[in-house]
Amino acid sequence: MNVSALEVNLIQRVAVGDILRRRSRDSANLEALVDFEGGQRRSLTYFQLNQRVNQLSHGLRQRGLQAGDRIALFGTNQLDFVVSLFACYKAGIVVVPINFLQNPDTIHYNLSHAEVKAVIYELALETIVDASTVKDLPNLQQRLIFGSEKSKADICFDELLDGQPTTELNDCIINDRDTAHIIYTSGTTSNPKGVETSHLALVMSSLSNPLSIGAEKHHSLLTVLPLFHCAALSFLYGCMQLSGSIVMRPNFDPVEVAELLEKEKIYTTALLPMMWRAMLQLPDIQQRDFSALTTAVYAMAPMDAETLEQLRATFDCPFHLGSGQTEFAPMACAYYDETPTEFGAGNYWGEPNICADQAIIDDHGNEVPQGEIGEICWRGPQVMTGYLKNTEATEEAQQFGWHHSGDLGLIDNEGQMLFVDRKKDTIKSGGENVSSMKVEQALLSHPAIVQAAAFGVPHPRWDEAVVACIQLAPDTSPSEEEIIAHCKQSLGGFETPKRVVVTEAFPMTSTGKVRKVELRQEYSKLFT
Amino acid sequence: MNVSALEVNLIQRVAVGDILRRRSRDSANLEALVDFEGGQRRSLTYFQLNQRVNQLSHGLRQRGLQAGDRIALFGTNQLDFVVSLFACYKAGIVVVPINFLQNPDTIHYNLSHAEVKAVIYELALETIVDASTVKDLPNLQQRLIFGSEKSKADICFDELLDGQPTTELNDCIINDRDTAHIIYTSGTTSNPKGVETSHLALVMSSLSNPLSIGAEKHHSLLTVLPLFHCAALSFLYGCMQLSGSIVMRPNFDPVEVAELLEKEKIYTTALLPMMWRAMLQLPDIQQRDFSALTTAVYAMAPMDAETLEQLRATFDCPFHLGSGQTEFAPMACAYYDETPTEFGAGNYWGEPNICADQAIIDDHGNEVPQGEIGEICWRGPQVMTGYLKNTEATEEAQQFGWHHSGDLGLIDNEGQMLFVDRKKDTIKSGGENVSSMKVEQALLSHPAIVQAAAFGVPHPRWDEAVVACIQLAPDTSPSEEEIIAHCKQSLGGFETPKRVVVTEAFPMTSTGKVRKVELRQEYSKLFT
Repeated sequence: MNVSALEVNLIQRVAVGDILRRRSRDSANLEALVDFEGGQRRSLTYFQLNQRVNQLSHGLRQRGLQAGDRIALFGTNQLDFVVSLFACYKAGIVVVPINFLQNPDTIHYNLSHAEVKAVIYELALETIVDASTVKDLPNLQQRLIFGSEKSKADICFDELLDGQPTTELNDCIINDRDTAHIIYTSGTTSNPKGVETSHLALVMSSLSNPLSIGAEKHHSLLTVLPLFHCAALSFLYGCMQLSGSIVMRPNFDPVEVAELLEKEKIYTTALLPMMWRAMLQLPDIQQRDFSALTTAVYAMAPMDAETLEQLRATFDCPFHLGSGQTEFAPMACAYYDETPTEFGAGNYWGEPNICADQAIIDDHGNEVPQGEIGEICWRGPQVMTGYLKNTEATEEAQQFGWHHSGDLGLIDNEGQMLFVDRKKDTIKSGGENVSSMKVEQALLSHPAIVQAAAFGVPHPRWDEAVVACIQLAPDTSPSEEEIIAHCKQSLGGFETPKRVVVTEAFPMTSTGKVRKVELRQEYSKLFT
Repeated sequence: MNVSALEVNLIQRVAVGDILRRRSRDSANLEALVDFEGGQRRSLTYFQLNQRVNQLSHGLRQRGLQAGDRIALFGTNQLDFVVSLFACYKAGIVVVPINFLQNPDTIHYNLSHAEVKAVIYELALETIVDASTVKDLPNLQQRLIFGSEKSKADICFDELLDGQPTTELNDCIINDRDTAHIIYTSGTTSNPKGVETSHLALVMSSLSNPLSIGAEKHHSLLTVLPLFHCAALSFLYGCMQLSGSIVMRPNFDPVEVAELLEKEKIYTTALLPMMWRAMLQLPDIQQRDFSALTTAVYAMAPMDAETLEQLRATFDCPFHLGSGQTEFAPMACAYYDETPTEFGAGNYWGEPNICADQAIIDDHGNEVPQGEIGEICWRGPQVMTGYLKNTEATEEAQQFGWHHSGDLGLIDNEGQMLFVDRKKDTIKSGGENVSSMKVEQALLSHPAIVQAAAFGVPHPRWDEAVVACIQLAPDTSPSEEEIIAHCKQSLGGFETPKRVVVTEAFPMTSTGKVRKVELRQEYSKLFT
């Protein structure tokens, strides 16, 4: 008898790419992906998708890319984004989906830190790729581009895939805990951190999410949140496990979403609260047929009771709040619509995913008594393996045998978890995490600014908007517009403060830190 | 920073015991287990169950039992069977659930081969434990017994659990691929094989089964199939993942099952075809309220179209056939009720579990063309780690990167898999696997028998009944009763032939093997 380690691995492994391989066998002719690139409805069945993925994985090998190498992926929500993702998963290549809304310097840092050997991108993002790779990247060897035009890339997909076999690659061992992808956080300290997530974590998420929130086989999912984020990816894997159809749009447009919900008979979708509110503003929203919509999800921020009531009445389905973070593959927890709570409305994050523990932990690693505030912590195999090349930050997150979320919360007397505040200075604006420290550094690089504090305040469209308070050097008086323009040089649009307010003195803690809680309170009505 | 390996393990591990710990936190007051021992309805909430499990795990440590040790478990379906199982899982102790219906010699072989250090059992099975341990077992140090009476054990649960902490044990690292339990096959070769199944395999099964077959949160499950088998265990884990209630009975009694389905508002149950048929025979079956029953499962054998029609009409829910084997945590596949097939009725095993691949493989490791017969093979993380101390058999099962089921089948033009025949000589009688070779050895140990072939034929009650053809030595004429009595000395009741037929000559293959296919054909109407 002679059984190789690779053969044993093929039998027993847990690998994200196997989700697709299995669907290609058992759901071959079902529609897997739908997009509207070029204004036309395009789709791939599971069989077609798997074949294209296999061709690309063979193509990547032919280009010299090996298991363990890292590739950056710049793409909007479209077929070949998913094809690229799964080709890497299957080839054991670690894919690094890039948030292309960030500043090119930040993206350059990600590419450099991850030592990517190649970038895959779509033509529309070429200028961003150019700007992000203009500085030295010693490991970067080649650029591959979606579609039929080579443009500034080394090779385009049409050329690369032509003639490649459609068979499974199956040339490398994929261990359960091998890294499937790395997603960079926006960074609450000076530099972003690369979150390594394992094949096992993603597969556990793909199984536990549909069981936690409830989903049927063959359901259809609408994805308008960007697939370079962990949240949209989690929904994609879960839908794929259930042989569902994933309808993608690169951006949110309320009219388009309303039409897709109707025409594509969408069963579930996850939108930001500001997007759901925009849906309600559509003049014909009450005339449309949303009967297929069975479960609606909102993410990243709470919604008020009145809006939720309107949404339920309009869409005739429950609205659940799903939460999580790059470090703990979403959903870590969910607040299920209309579950009883102690404090009524509020930013309830609710109950843990069925494959997670959730607890409120004090600074000494002990669970606090029910009702008291502490750090929201989780356990579960969906957790990150760690931060790439950053043992210290990894161990900080893993203290006391709990994954520390960096957020503060409490568990109420109904067992529901209420988010209270951020432990670290992260602002969540329009679905993006913004590091207040990074914003402050941009502000302080302006010669007239001597002290700066960036924080988030409620905003009707962005849920939170970035706002900054600054102190000026004597005899300076730059305009607000000038300061904002200065910030834009080093920050992405979503990171740039919407308002900058000059102040004489900051509220300070006894240890000399700015009391941002007070600033947030003071400016809470700035946009409402 | 100082994070121990144990702390990291606690955060990220995949462990069966964590299913219970999580439910104890998020579903504390929901009913987890129900039994009727002593004629009274007893139940444990998830919180209570977890506390009792923790107490037992501390108790096991106090008795000197360590992670990696093996313990045999003799029990019928009752609360403390599940308590014992999970106490071992949480303590990293490998539990060996024993099929106590087997012959004591076979059980002794299991205990000896697994080198068990302790046995846990219930009083009603003490004579079986005695008989199975009368021969030398050098590793066996102690006997622990459920309940308040010590009897011949070293300690009873009431005494052992008294005063033990209810906190989590959390004293050992549990790796994803560590063995959670070992279940012995009945053995198609001369000796039974110990199937090692990992924590990961069981957790994957617990998640993928409810997704594959469909199940709601908080559903109730009725378990009358014995929990020492993999099938009943798989349903238990899946129900627990969804915070469900598991109602247990140690035996099948149609009247009792009908009453429980009604009174306990059972959502799903898995019974053998013979049991479902017995249900239909109940005089008052049409007057009962089975409205809670949403999904019914039958296992191990097909049912004819007429019976299925009657069952659907009576219970008003779909009837799915779930399949699998000890070596591949059920369900490996399922035939979903009324799915179109090429050949109409037949022994359809249907489609793979969503976390499994299913293929028909030839003797050279290649997939056969659609419609052709070959060995039914699976891939997926639910697969066994291997046979304990039997590398050769493990590698035989793993050939060509597929788990070989030992059964023959084909995939029809609708993509549905049809079981055709057994590759090895296993008879499936009353839900138990019977090794025909073992039966033949028992027959051949009779001085008058010179050749023997045991095989299964259709039986209205047992689905298959064990039947044997024998050739006698010259001038001998033992009676059928005498031969059956002789077999009973070394075989369990379910293994003993129901009929023994004397023949002059066997149909033989060119290579000198008995053509059992022909014998099965010849005697197919023996009981119908």
